[in-house]
Amino acid sequence: MAQETFASKISQSLNRVSSRNGICGSDVHIFQVPFVKVPTATTPDPLTGETLPITMGHEFSGTVVELGEGADGNKFPVGQNVIVEPIFSCMKASCGACTAGTRNLCPLVNCIGIGGFGGGLAEYITVDELLVHRLPDGIPLDIGAMLEPLAVSWHCVKRSEFKPNDTVLISGAGPIGLFLLKVLRRELAQEHGATLVVDPLSTDVVNATMKATDGLGVHIAFDAAGIQATMTAAVQSVRARGKVVNVASWEKPPQIDLNLCLLKEITILSSNTYTGDHPDMLEAVAAGRFAGLEGLITGKVALDDVVEKGFNALINDKDSHVKILIHP
Amino acid sequence: MAQETFASKISQSLNRVSSRNGICGSDVHIFQVPFVKVPTATTPDPLTGETLPITMGHEFSGTVVELGEGADGNKFPVGQNVIVEPIFSCMKASCGACTAGTRNLCPLVNCIGIGGFGGGLAEYITVDELLVHRLPDGIPLDIGAMLEPLAVSWHCVKRSEFKPNDTVLISGAGPIGLFLLKVLRRELAQEHGATLVVDPLSTDVVNATMKATDGLGVHIAFDAAGIQATMTAAVQSVRARGKVVNVASWEKPPQIDLNLCLLKEITILSSNTYTGDHPDMLEAVAAGRFAGLEGLITGKVALDDVVEKGFNALINDKDSHVKILIHP
Ligand SMILES: [Zn+2]
Ligand SMILES: [Zn+2]
Repeated sequence: MAQETFASKISQSLNRVSSRNGICGSDVHIFQVPFVKVPTATTPDPLTGETLPITMGHEFSGTVVELGEGADGNKFPVGQNVIVEPIFSCMKASCGACTAGTRNLCPLVNCIGIGGFGGGLAEYITVDELLVHRLPDGIPLDIGAMLEPLAVSWHCVKRSEFKPNDTVLISGAGPIGLFLLKVLRRELAQEHGATLVVDPLSTDVVNATMKATDGLGVHIAFDAAGIQATMTAAVQSVRARGKVVNVASWEKPPQIDLNLCLLKEITILSSNTYTGDHPDMLEAVAAGRFAGLEGLITGKVALDDVVEKGFNALINDKDSHVKILIHP
Repeated sequence: MAQETFASKISQSLNRVSSRNGICGSDVHIFQVPFVKVPTATTPDPLTGETLPITMGHEFSGTVVELGEGADGNKFPVGQNVIVEPIFSCMKASCGACTAGTRNLCPLVNCIGIGGFGGGLAEYITVDELLVHRLPDGIPLDIGAMLEPLAVSWHCVKRSEFKPNDTVLISGAGPIGLFLLKVLRRELAQEHGATLVVDPLSTDVVNATMKATDGLGVHIAFDAAGIQATMTAAVQSVRARGKVVNVASWEKPPQIDLNLCLLKEITILSSNTYTGDHPDMLEAVAAGRFAGLEGLITGKVALDDVVEKGFNALINDKDSHVKILIHP
């Protein structure tokens, strides 16, 4: 079963109502930065076979309303609140990435709401049960819709091999940067997890970082912004054998000072979405380790208002929004 | 003792004759690419206190001819053949890199023959015994002079966490690239260790690499060349979760496609000289695991001829030289 494509499984799965969907930076940028391959009106996605128009929305939660043929009613009974891991891949035996348990790195990887198979910005969606997870009891659907970007940050922290007492720099205070803080904050003391918040427009980030770390630099610098200035600051801010963790999408490939990387034996990691991270993350969510996620919801909008009060708000009023939820 | 500076120890150590010294790409480039801080005629090295002129040469072997005050005559008796690990550092308790056992990453790191403390291009040199290692019995001094660059490659392979059966791409067929092959070849089958040798001027390296790895890409790409084209090829040639290992010095910071790094979750490591690598490497040398090193010696020159037949030959006749040894 693990070798079957999600494409072939999708029709046998369960139906559910998509009651909450977050809008993501990548939704806004999909047609500006083709980070995953977006089908066009004439070129279909190779796995879904679909062309534009495609229903958007990949950060969503919902309630099971109907079971598909062959779906496991014990695992996901009607009425169960669930979230969807929207990344799908080829799952072929010949695919190195899929067989290695890293289907996020499949050359054909795509995402519900981007490559097809429906999207969260709809009343109902049919999803392969392999991509569905139970939302823990007592966690509202609104929070459920926030767990997809939380999974991105969870995977990123895991990739970084962060250890308690490691010092970190996070560049980029968008959703991924803020969710990174949430994942890291269990180890940190301050409110919101950050001990120092710096505006890069008015403060020299590298100087501030060095001052805060006795001149040694941080153990890990996360770049969730994806511009030349943040990558340069990251490389300059880490200590000897420090790590720079790239979790951004880049409009332009940055120049990286590899002489400085050599002098400090810096490691530059990259972290792409998630793979196999949901069970552990959901256990942490169930255990109440992510209190305060609702503070990152900065708007709730009806589906009819998604363009004006959703996308346009994110584009034009960037500074006051983190996550806007859409209630179909 | 480990906390003392090599500077303060240097006068108490042992004397030896420098009978063989290799010339290195970094000797040729020292004044073109200031990769380590080279003192000027007026700005001294902070550890040695020396200004130019400084005796060059950091790849050398020799025979102990006299013991310094406090030197351990049992460890290094007169007549013993030795090699020198030329990297020195501050060794202060306040230095994060030195106290972590990574003195190659000390902010004040420098090298005998570059920052002072004499150099290998001389008849005799006085060296701190902490920087001296016995040349294993039966290994000629000529080979001893090759072990400094071998240590660079040894450290680099260790940093890469290379495993038997990993596929690799090595860019750059200079000494470090060729020594990388020597370190890796124990695991590989072919003569010289390489299964495929490609001229990047006439062949597409990425295509050739993909063909040779069933379209998956290599596990590790070593960049010992340090130009945009090799870094671009490295990032394109590695498989999902593959590693790019930077062991070059760069005249210009390369642009790196971090979107592609993200899609494949590539890790970009850097490897700087060596630290604590000599004992294991020398054990492997003693066990005969590096037969054929003498094949990389492409010239032997007297000290008086070092400029014309040494440096100028390396600059003007690059393709026919790997290592030129100087016999003072
Ligand atoms: Zn795949
Ligand atoms: Zn130091």
